[in-house]
Amino acid sequence: MQRHFDHDLAQLKNHLLRMGAMVEHQIQRALQALVERDSDVALSVIERDHEVNALDVEIDDTCIKLLATQQPTARDLRFVSTAMKISSELERMGDLADNIAQRALELNGEPQLKPYIDIPRMANWTMRMVKECLDAFVNSDPVLARKVCVDDDVVDNINEQLFRELLSFMLENPATITRAIRLTFVAKSLERIADHATNIAELVVYMVEGKNIRHVAPSAPL
Amino acid sequence: MQRHFDHDLAQLKNHLLRMGAMVEHQIQRALQALVERDSDVALSVIERDHEVNALDVEIDDTCIKLLATQQPTARDLRFVSTAMKISSELERMGDLADNIAQRALELNGEPQLKPYIDIPRMANWTMRMVKECLDAFVNSDPVLARKVCVDDDVVDNINEQLFRELLSFMLENPATITRAIRLTFVAKSLERIADHATNIAELVVYMVEGKNIRHVAPSAPL
Repeated sequence: MQRHFDHDLAQLKNHLLRMGAMVEHQIQRALQALVERDSDVALSVIERDHEVNALDVEIDDTCIKLLATQQPTARDLRFVSTAMKISSELERMGDLADNIAQRALELNGEPQLKPYIDIPRMANWTMRMVKECLDAFVNSDPVLARKVCVDDDVVDNINEQLFRELLSFMLENPATITRAIRLTFVAKSLERIADHATNIAELVVYMVEGKNIRHVAPSAPL
Repeated sequence: MQRHFDHDLAQLKNHLLRMGAMVEHQIQRALQALVERDSDVALSVIERDHEVNALDVEIDDTCIKLLATQQPTARDLRFVSTAMKISSELERMGDLADNIAQRALELNGEPQLKPYIDIPRMANWTMRMVKECLDAFVNSDPVLARKVCVDDDVVDNINEQLFRELLSFMLENPATITRAIRLTFVAKSLERIADHATNIAELVVYMVEGKNIRHVAPSAPL
């Protein structure tokens, strides 16, 4: 029975990693759609969002089934309840990648406002956070998880800086307003993806140490 | 044992309702801070956010303890796993009320851009959705839950309409840009609160009918 359960847990872990890889890919492609102004790529991101959603539903069902049939306790219970939450967080990141792709579609239909430098930089930090929070989960690594929480401040700072820059564009030339606002939304989506990665990192610390570190950091300014 | 468990479940329900009432109050006060331009109220909303967070942690711990000690199955298991998720959704609504209060603080320091009409209207719809999704949960009422999902479209529409209006303000007079963007953020926060209420409503349908209706509606345009 326990061996069967171990097999189920290993499979659950694999599903989560698959979902994580899919979400990372969606974010990376949404950014590609924006930076390379490639609307076909944007459309394919939007088209594939339902695959992320389907995995979320599947993982959720698996967890409920495990709780019902195996009635895990202690560490295993914490693992399963964490897996359910991680799946929700990943699903929301998928939605945000979809949002970025939608903004990219709009932005690609107009002249480029400025070379995209800060947004790809922000995206790189964010994607690393997504990767690292999942590594932290798979390897039960609270040190790496805590690093992810610290990195979140970097993303928040780039977001604020970018917001100020876009604001100055708008003030100088109102013709840029619509595009600048769309870029603000892209940055905001990245910032929220980083928040979800931070949520996952906090869940990992809780899973490994049984210590709740959520709700201790101040919330982002925007 | 079962009677003890029933008592625990009833208490869990009460905790969730208390958290829901607290979040509703936070949203309502954040709006009051904005509409009545009362920064003291805004500060008290920000100050009280940690109480919402504390309840989230408490509910989560209670659920994990129930899963570990009572090993519920079927309907009870679905109730406990739904409670954990509802608590996360409420906590996020609390964060968004905090965000609105922060924007109100900034907006109150500048002349009012325009009379706030659409935002209170949007807030009323949103607060009703929050109330109704929790009523649907307490009364295991999937009909009411489905109504909440439909109402979400109304909130999305007001948000879009308001965004267009604020955009025209910005285009006509760049001096309004900063304030208009802050108002956009307030509207966006309300729209996200409505999304969280919809998430709860979907969870209620799943809890009662065992049917997953998540991920069937198209995502909001902004």
